[in-house]
Amino acid sequence: MQLLEERILKDGKVYPGEVLKVSGFLNHLIDEQLLDEVGKEISARFCKQNVTKILTIEASGIAIACAAAHYLHAPVLFAKKSKTNNISADCYCADVMSYTHGTLSKVCVDKEFLSSSDRVLIVDDFLARGEAVRGLKSLVEQAGAELVGCAIAIEKGFQPGGAQLRAEGVRVESLAIIDSMTDDSLVIRHQN
Amino acid sequence: MQLLEERILKDGKVYPGEVLKVSGFLNHLIDEQLLDEVGKEISARFCKQNVTKILTIEASGIAIACAAAHYLHAPVLFAKKSKTNNISADCYCADVMSYTHGTLSKVCVDKEFLSSSDRVLIVDDFLARGEAVRGLKSLVEQAGAELVGCAIAIEKGFQPGGAQLRAEGVRVESLAIIDSMTDDSLVIRHQN
Repeated sequence: MQLLEERILKDGKVYPGEVLKVSGFLNHLIDEQLLDEVGKEISARFCKQNVTKILTIEASGIAIACAAAHYLHAPVLFAKKSKTNNISADCYCADVMSYTHGTLSKVCVDKEFLSSSDRVLIVDDFLARGEAVRGLKSLVEQAGAELVGCAIAIEKGFQPGGAQLRAEGVRVESLAIIDSMTDDSLVIRHQN
Repeated sequence: MQLLEERILKDGKVYPGEVLKVSGFLNHLIDEQLLDEVGKEISARFCKQNVTKILTIEASGIAIACAAAHYLHAPVLFAKKSKTNNISADCYCADVMSYTHGTLSKVCVDKEFLSSSDRVLIVDDFLARGEAVRGLKSLVEQAGAELVGCAIAIEKGFQPGGAQLRAEGVRVESLAIIDSMTDDSLVIRHQN
């Protein structure tokens, strides 16, 4: 997606440890026009899949999932990290390791909101090692629902998550794929 | 807002400790049509205020803030709870007590995304004791920005947050105000 790729090249900031900071437009400050276009693009790629639930993980996936929901006309379900007093004990849960934050967390969704009749699109801002998507995929499987695919804003193509998921037969659509990233260069994969 | 009030009466669930669970349509599973109408309504109430930033707090405020952003054509800035490796040390921070979760957290925004030229609309899903809004208001004040008001989906009118903020001169617009809540009744304030 050209608009997103151009924005990454213009405003993305590379930090040590292969961290790409897009907090100026995607996951802290959110450019609503870009977000709308991202939602439109995800919808264009999955609109024939009869998506019944858009599944994401708090916090930075929520905006993108909602933008996609606006065009796909499907509800958003966001998995919560760790249990809170406000969530039913009757949950599907999975462990997710965040390498960025160095933390292991449990992600949960209420069982009543995900069922075997659902056709689920997973949405997230980043795909790197694939831990978050794997956790969400586990929730879909526990519910016996069908996973129609994953829509990702930015994939770190030099990390194994995307390739592994595709090798398992999951349809992964990344709007921008970073092929390499160093302090002074950022290479985006050409996608037609 | 009639659509939201009707939905609360139909699908909201009251739990001990004056907890109103709206996770079936607003803050876990999100009904995208309702969300869109909430965004439209917030925009209708604040569209003349030249809002330059919509400020919310992760996680459940993000969807509502993005829906409002879609119509107000302003970017969303979501305050993060506690510091992460991904966020600059150069932040405005405030303490926020969550009575629902029994936790004290620090909420932060990157200083580069909030400035004295901003006209800020605070958006959140709930207003009860007003702790979250107070934390966000502190961030606005630290930046020297102007607070144009607060847009809240559901205010617990029997708790003091809304009244205190209004007494301080803050324009608080709540789309639904709960006047009382017990196991077998839920009374919504009539607003014209």
